[in-house]
Amino acid sequence: MKLVTFKAPHQKAQAGWIEGETVYSIAECSGGSLPDTMSELIKISADKMPELQQLVGKQQKGVSIHEVELLAPLENPSSVRDFMAFENHLLNASKKSGLTIHPEWYKIPVFYFTNHQSIHGPNQTVDIPPNCKMFDYELEIAAVIGKQGKNIKATDADDYIFGYTIFNDWSARDLQLQEMQVGLGPAKGKDAATSIGPYIVTKDELESYRSNDRYDLKMTAKVNGKILSEGNFKDIHYTFGEMIERASSGVTLYPGDVIGSGTVGTGCLLELGQDVHPWLQSGDEVELEITELGVLRNRIE
Amino acid sequence: MKLVTFKAPHQKAQAGWIEGETVYSIAECSGGSLPDTMSELIKISADKMPELQQLVGKQQKGVSIHEVELLAPLENPSSVRDFMAFENHLLNASKKSGLTIHPEWYKIPVFYFTNHQSIHGPNQTVDIPPNCKMFDYELEIAAVIGKQGKNIKATDADDYIFGYTIFNDWSARDLQLQEMQVGLGPAKGKDAATSIGPYIVTKDELESYRSNDRYDLKMTAKVNGKILSEGNFKDIHYTFGEMIERASSGVTLYPGDVIGSGTVGTGCLLELGQDVHPWLQSGDEVELEITELGVLRNRIE
Repeated sequence: MKLVTFKAPHQKAQAGWIEGETVYSIAECSGGSLPDTMSELIKISADKMPELQQLVGKQQKGVSIHEVELLAPLENPSSVRDFMAFENHLLNASKKSGLTIHPEWYKIPVFYFTNHQSIHGPNQTVDIPPNCKMFDYELEIAAVIGKQGKNIKATDADDYIFGYTIFNDWSARDLQLQEMQVGLGPAKGKDAATSIGPYIVTKDELESYRSNDRYDLKMTAKVNGKILSEGNFKDIHYTFGEMIERASSGVTLYPGDVIGSGTVGTGCLLELGQDVHPWLQSGDEVELEITELGVLRNRIE
Repeated sequence: MKLVTFKAPHQKAQAGWIEGETVYSIAECSGGSLPDTMSELIKISADKMPELQQLVGKQQKGVSIHEVELLAPLENPSSVRDFMAFENHLLNASKKSGLTIHPEWYKIPVFYFTNHQSIHGPNQTVDIPPNCKMFDYELEIAAVIGKQGKNIKATDADDYIFGYTIFNDWSARDLQLQEMQVGLGPAKGKDAATSIGPYIVTKDELESYRSNDRYDLKMTAKVNGKILSEGNFKDIHYTFGEMIERASSGVTLYPGDVIGSGTVGTGCLLELGQDVHPWLQSGDEVELEITELGVLRNRIE
């Protein structure tokens, strides 16, 4: 299923699903027996997804996708961890700064917590943070946790994944490069905005792209219509299973936690260099696309 | 006021305040007009604190503090940022590793987001994280945000602070030192537990300790009854005002966000060295004490 949070004119935002170009309200189509927010739906998803799936393909009362506003499919993640799981991103970024990849990167999947309260949705404008002159996008894929768990093994992690979405980890490179010298990692360089969407695709929808523990999903980024970044989810070094094992070691993961993959190789201007494209400016349109996950489009304010 | 979250026998957890050795239920004493959770109280605190303050000193129906369990005063912070604002902590920690403080530290207050979903309360046992052999405490003070704001100036920041509490940023040093080499800062080294409490002291209670923008509050840490760490909040290099200005630049802060100061000088075993005290082990009792903020006591499981 392709799950969205949408806002019809004069109505409040609610959770729904998409069939073709039509959006259906989950609360309405279930006669109120399923919740009207994505966060509540995800909390009960381990039990209630079959009930939701039975509604699909049988509804009359949908709304055209062109008549509603799509918001971030999950407006209020309970947390956001962002990993750095693509080797090529590091190789490219390290080359630019004359460094090599630290050997520890090959031993453990590493993440940082980012601001889960600055989530942006598709088509929402994104402000360049104050004092930032080097604003960048990052092309990532995210897994949304659907079931509470602790000390989850990588081989069991699929049971804890609700679905996947596109993830743009907007980055203020100048703020990030300055603060990271102090050693606590990125914070102000990343916390002004993270975009997710346009929908969350439940994991069953991606089975046909699966080969063992990898998925063959093309990932591209365009700025103002021109393709700048091209990668594939199958090239990830650490799987989401391995990331979830790491994140949940000694720590409880909750439904609604979001886990970002880190940037796919070539997936940001920092890697590509200013000769390929200058830092983002007011008016630029950034479109991230991943096979089956749609297009996540944002304009810089 | 000293605000707590407490659990009386056979009752659910609820917000209250302490007078002497007696705890009063906020919801009950207000006849239900004030909320029963700390997170809800903080959300409306900008308007409703006068109503709460009028209840103090006039109640009959309190419970002895010895008959209730004190939980983390705010069980579910909306986020936790932890800064590194004491210079002596860095000087001591840097010396141990043969490094010097990075010059950027003197230019900007730097923080990382830590796990706001692993909050522990006073007297709650704390597990040593899996694969950790170098477990440590960190003696910090935290400010709790009481009012939503963005781009807050340091000079206006006091209006946005609800109160203060003791903050123990439990640290798995071996996990932290390994992951930090990759460059994304501390995450697994810090996310298994953060303790706060025993209460949140509203900022007005600290006025008599104030001198300009600093507070004269003694900070000590004991392990198994022996004082190991001694510092003072007045020695902080960056004020909470400056930290809030940094955190809120381009980003909205929300009521219930928690901001940690970073470790006071000598406030952890990493600084003190293993000749002063070995890493924490099962059965150790750690007590953090700050003038007017009480004692935050936890035992290692």
